[in-house]
Amino acid sequence: MNKPITSADLVTPKVTTGSLPASRKVYVAPDAAPDLRVPVREIVLEASSGEPNLPVYDTTGVYSDPDVTIDVERGLARTRIEWVKQRGGVEQYDGRPIQPVDNGNATGKYLARNFPNTPKPWRALDGKPVTQYEFAKAGVITKEMIYVATRENLGRKQQLERAAAVLADGEQFGGALPAFVTPEFVRSEIARGRAIIPSNINHAELEPMIIGRNFLTKINANIGNSAVTSSVEEEIEKMVWAIRWGADTVMDLSTGRNIHNTREWILRNSPVPIGTVPIYQALEKVDGDPVKLDWECYKDTLIEQCEQGVDYFTIHAGVRLAYVPLTATRVTGIVSRGGSIMAKWCLSRHKESFLYERFDEICDIMRKYDVSFSLGDGLRPGSIADANDRAQFAELETLGELTKIAWDKGCQVMIEGPGHVPMHKIKINMDKQLKECGEAPFYTLGPLTTDIAPGYDHITSGIGAAMIGWFGCAMLCYVTPKEHLGLPDRDDVKDGVITYKIAAHAADLAKGHPAAQLRDDALSRARFDFRWQDQFNLGLDPETAREYHDETLPKEAHKVAHFCSMCGPKFCSMKITQDVRDYAAGLNDPNSSGALSSGTLTQKGVIEDGMAQMSEKFRQMGEQVYVDAAAVKASNKAF
Amino acid sequence: MNKPITSADLVTPKVTTGSLPASRKVYVAPDAAPDLRVPVREIVLEASSGEPNLPVYDTTGVYSDPDVTIDVERGLARTRIEWVKQRGGVEQYDGRPIQPVDNGNATGKYLARNFPNTPKPWRALDGKPVTQYEFAKAGVITKEMIYVATRENLGRKQQLERAAAVLADGEQFGGALPAFVTPEFVRSEIARGRAIIPSNINHAELEPMIIGRNFLTKINANIGNSAVTSSVEEEIEKMVWAIRWGADTVMDLSTGRNIHNTREWILRNSPVPIGTVPIYQALEKVDGDPVKLDWECYKDTLIEQCEQGVDYFTIHAGVRLAYVPLTATRVTGIVSRGGSIMAKWCLSRHKESFLYERFDEICDIMRKYDVSFSLGDGLRPGSIADANDRAQFAELETLGELTKIAWDKGCQVMIEGPGHVPMHKIKINMDKQLKECGEAPFYTLGPLTTDIAPGYDHITSGIGAAMIGWFGCAMLCYVTPKEHLGLPDRDDVKDGVITYKIAAHAADLAKGHPAAQLRDDALSRARFDFRWQDQFNLGLDPETAREYHDETLPKEAHKVAHFCSMCGPKFCSMKITQDVRDYAAGLNDPNSSGALSSGTLTQKGVIEDGMAQMSEKFRQMGEQVYVDAAAVKASNKAF
Repeated sequence: MNKPITSADLVTPKVTTGSLPASRKVYVAPDAAPDLRVPVREIVLEASSGEPNLPVYDTTGVYSDPDVTIDVERGLARTRIEWVKQRGGVEQYDGRPIQPVDNGNATGKYLARNFPNTPKPWRALDGKPVTQYEFAKAGVITKEMIYVATRENLGRKQQLERAAAVLADGEQFGGALPAFVTPEFVRSEIARGRAIIPSNINHAELEPMIIGRNFLTKINANIGNSAVTSSVEEEIEKMVWAIRWGADTVMDLSTGRNIHNTREWILRNSPVPIGTVPIYQALEKVDGDPVKLDWECYKDTLIEQCEQGVDYFTIHAGVRLAYVPLTATRVTGIVSRGGSIMAKWCLSRHKESFLYERFDEICDIMRKYDVSFSLGDGLRPGSIADANDRAQFAELETLGELTKIAWDKGCQVMIEGPGHVPMHKIKINMDKQLKECGEAPFYTLGPLTTDIAPGYDHITSGIGAAMIGWFGCAMLCYVTPKEHLGLPDRDDVKDGVITYKIAAHAADLAKGHPAAQLRDDALSRARFDFRWQDQFNLGLDPETAREYHDETLPKEAHKVAHFCSMCGPKFCSMKITQDVRDYAAGLNDPNSSGALSSGTLTQKGVIEDGMAQMSEKFRQMGEQVYVDAAAVKASNKAF
Repeated sequence: MNKPITSADLVTPKVTTGSLPASRKVYVAPDAAPDLRVPVREIVLEASSGEPNLPVYDTTGVYSDPDVTIDVERGLARTRIEWVKQRGGVEQYDGRPIQPVDNGNATGKYLARNFPNTPKPWRALDGKPVTQYEFAKAGVITKEMIYVATRENLGRKQQLERAAAVLADGEQFGGALPAFVTPEFVRSEIARGRAIIPSNINHAELEPMIIGRNFLTKINANIGNSAVTSSVEEEIEKMVWAIRWGADTVMDLSTGRNIHNTREWILRNSPVPIGTVPIYQALEKVDGDPVKLDWECYKDTLIEQCEQGVDYFTIHAGVRLAYVPLTATRVTGIVSRGGSIMAKWCLSRHKESFLYERFDEICDIMRKYDVSFSLGDGLRPGSIADANDRAQFAELETLGELTKIAWDKGCQVMIEGPGHVPMHKIKINMDKQLKECGEAPFYTLGPLTTDIAPGYDHITSGIGAAMIGWFGCAMLCYVTPKEHLGLPDRDDVKDGVITYKIAAHAADLAKGHPAAQLRDDALSRARFDFRWQDQFNLGLDPETAREYHDETLPKEAHKVAHFCSMCGPKFCSMKITQDVRDYAAGLNDPNSSGALSSGTLTQKGVIEDGMAQMSEKFRQMGEQVYVDAAAVKASNKAF
């Protein structure tokens, strides 16, 4: 299988590397485990600003580390295998041999070359704890827990030192954000089932992250080739590209041929958890006919993927035979692929779902590798008309029942949610999920708040995602502009990720996450201070911000100018604000009349840290701020 | 002033005309005033679908009417002047002569040619009612009220006939959406001050529309040249372009030279209300120095713009001297241009705002022409850090006081709102506005729910706009991707408008607007039925949807194919759903076993209107649905 193939499709994948603009890769060693290296991206601000650099959560892996040579043929360092071995209770074994059907019987030039150095899998020894849930229940704090605690604390120390009232004034709807995240807090949240660290022991390349309502809101990006289009190379780059812009996990939803080999390349090169929907591959193994699916084929696929290192599986075990007819009067029926496969299977055999009936066995398999459940919402609504109907909620109730079984079996669990839901029905979803599923993390697709904007469903869904994130949803599955229309390309993946970073961050702000506003404040200060480069670099997408700015005012000089293109140089509201500060300071000064004559600025007008420099800068600029509009326009044209 | 100029900048503006895809312009004659012609856009669906065409609210004016020859040199038909004259109490007069300062003293090639046929202005005779508010209070139903009632009722008759329970299950937060909008309901809402029809008697080209929480949520698009960039021609096309995609009103925020002439071209060619911020032009008249502003200059500017036909004025009369120091400790100070001009004026003279002190006189001027107030929020927050602070709310309380004065004077009033507000602080804004301002319509800019995404502020703000629209905001002022970075171009205007149409529609759905969901349902049925063309055409932006689809599956044949690029032809969830319907129908059929063997479909499986044709179509397609994936891929490549 591994013999080299020279077809253009199968060359070594090229991936995007290098820092983001003005960013520096930093690693933090937690006190509790100084051997860990927890990544942070530090945004470097203008030295003259007097502002500290801003550290931000870093999902980009070593692809953004200039000191690391990337070689996708070798994969990332398998650092985490040592943590697993140190804990013990695991064994390495030969694993299931790759079979032609794993890649859809592709041969010759149609077969994608496999990753050259596939590691041998590990699994739990009988009766030994291996999952984060089991360790948490046993009171053990794992390195993964210490690692994620460090990541989650970004900025909080700074906030604790700065403010007496640590928690911002958010509304958490029953959540319990801590001022500071300790490893013990992480452990307790996992033990309660309220958070998961998706981390298959065979995905040793992983930089662990946590999903739970009391942590930062996370986002997932979907990639995956389909029967109709795309290649292995594209998929790996999509993964690297998605994490570059902030995807916290990536789902490989490939269908068609080469599923196994594509996934191996992705896993060996992914620092973020990888999720899959195993039934997609199982279906490929039976020639795409749901009726031919059976437990043996599905079980074989689960083991295949467990051994490869997939971190979480979407399993649509809540699509029960009795619920299927509930969808018959829907406007858009069953729109989940996994849901419709299972519905077809149940109907054709007139039998209860084998995923439901074999759920115990599924748990036993997944536990051995610590693969987390992502209990799929196969009956999610595909239109506003179908939102919150009986089919959807019947399945959710069953997912609650299955959550408890999975916990009893020692597995980590999250729950998938809709879909298409108008705004007034979103909170009902969140509340019901929390109640039915014992606060297991919710992981929703959007939801889309209207059906009328194909081509803009990143936006229709970004609205719903921000809201449900605020209400307590732990992870938001992105939607790209191509939703309903086609497969996302590079630009679509970026648009989807950025939109969902916005939604997740808006949710964190609204929940009152202790340190979320640090970035907003840093960016707003840069904006007020006319530090254009800092404003771009502090944003989620510095490249686009810079490009947009340059379309109107392309000259480098304008990026240090104290005006922007909206108001022009003759009049600037932010300039006037400085006068206000001077005036207000004068009001508090017994030697001042409080009135400020036009155009004069006084040093005593400075009222905030860092404002001294700014005032100075304004004075230095002097009349330069009031340059002639026509001259500026002419200079732009000349550019 | 009107002599022709041959410079390339000053040629006859070219504007976009023609129907939107698959759309037909229809005019409705209301029973109460059969001479009115209320525009509707009818989206024509595939004849074979059995679906009725879908009528949608039409903001595009006659630019989308193939039977009308557009000549921007002549302007639109001034139909409404007859309605005004019929009501009486008005006089035509010579009006204020244009002065060089109105166009920033531009001369020669720098002076934009004026509109060739400027009409003579009208105004109210002393003591005679002229505003919609005055007529409403007097119990008079105007043609404007009948016109907007007809527009607002779109789809409601259809809903009334179809459903016993007319109102959808939304949450209105104290709103009172009627099942059907009568002219009397419009009158009563205006009389209560809860809605306005911005309609200067001199903007006779207007197709009236209404702004109020118990009507469809509206959106505004901003255009306007600035000192740095853009031309008259661009601005007119921006207006036409913005209304093509759905802008309900347009604000001309021009600064710099040629303000008067640019505005004249826009007004004479605009079917939607035009708003301005008169202080921008007043400031130009005093060479951009706020300190030199005075009442005479401002009053002169108001009259100039009243005579031209501007429908609403943003007036920052709530920026009082005492509030200005409240902004001193803000992260981003005063970010409203109008607000900072007035702050500067107050500070430099250490005097109360002349807009506040002269508010009575302003009302008297605006009433004569029925120019509506849009009471500006000059102290709106410019960052998350500054949201809902004392400065903002102090001004809002003053706006409430001014609202009552304006009503007493017979004027129509709406209130502007923020800005930058995290999600958990949005509803507080809406509730306070309703309380302070006696339910006068709220008109907000976004709000942006985070500061960290320059380049994507249409999205950061679309989230906040959808939410505040749901909570009761009557009109949402769009934000484009260029916000904070530069002036929007054509694509940005479209992105902003579409994003805000999404927000407004999502709000209407969540409020339970009786007919809002008709479009979602029609589109979802088209989606489920694989009517790709209908899906595109029913969307807010058919062109982009089609383009995205074609990137993956460009062949025409695929637009009638029963599969999409996401799942590929071998497996399709919507196909499976049809089996579910057949099965469910079988369950209710005593002659059926209820079990459906793989691949067979029966006519008795049809359970909804229109499903018969669909089932038939599926049968006809037969094996064609299950075409070979590789062959499809090859055919795409060949394309």
